[in-house]
Amino acid sequence: MKRFPYTEVDEEEVPAPAKGVKVRWLITEETGAPNFAMRQFTVEAGGSTPLHAHPWEHEAYILEGSGTIRGGDDVEALEAGDVVFVPPDELHQFRNTGDGELSFLCLIPLQKS
Amino acid sequence: MKRFPYTEVDEEEVPAPAKGVKVRWLITEETGAPNFAMRQFTVEAGGSTPLHAHPWEHEAYILEGSGTIRGGDDVEALEAGDVVFVPPDELHQFRNTGDGELSFLCLIPLQKS
Repeated sequence: MKRFPYTEVDEEEVPAPAKGVKVRWLITEETGAPNFAMRQFTVEAGGSTPLHAHPWEHEAYILEGSGTIRGGDDVEALEAGDVVFVPPDELHQFRNTGDGELSFLCLIPLQKS
Repeated sequence: MKRFPYTEVDEEEVPAPAKGVKVRWLITEETGAPNFAMRQFTVEAGGSTPLHAHPWEHEAYILEGSGTIRGGDDVEALEAGDVVFVPPDELHQFRNTGDGELSFLCLIPLQKS
């Protein structure tokens, strides 16, 4: 078993076209994970993740802040305690529309097929 | 894309030998998940999950409260913001040793092999 505070993992800047986004890779293959990875993202006020699609899904949980999630042509408001599922190949984007930081967990499969 | 507050999912009592534990299955195959499931657990003060092992891993994130996680012979304190990885086949148990509710996300693979 491994237990550690999320702050023990270094934050990395997510490159453009992400805007004001940082990521911590909390659980990865290096941790010993056989199937899926846990990441924590923070998006600064006014920032956003890229509008993009890929062949793997997202399972996300909003920890703090407020914003929006776009999935396909649908845009919905986000707040702490919200659960988000983005299916494979759907265009999607997280935006921070609040004044504070938007923070969420976002998990992906390790086998991206 | 699907977005919903975690409270939209009904809580289920986890049967004994769990003690004071409830679970919400937030993201499952029914949601469309191809690879892994997201559950949220709450453990009441003094409660605990079963001391058990199984051939699939746990990836957990502590949302609220305090307690302990046992993994094998190791026992560590838990608080909000802690990340826990329990590898396949390791004996483990979450305990709420605080005064309030212990709440955490715990994800598992859908293919339990």
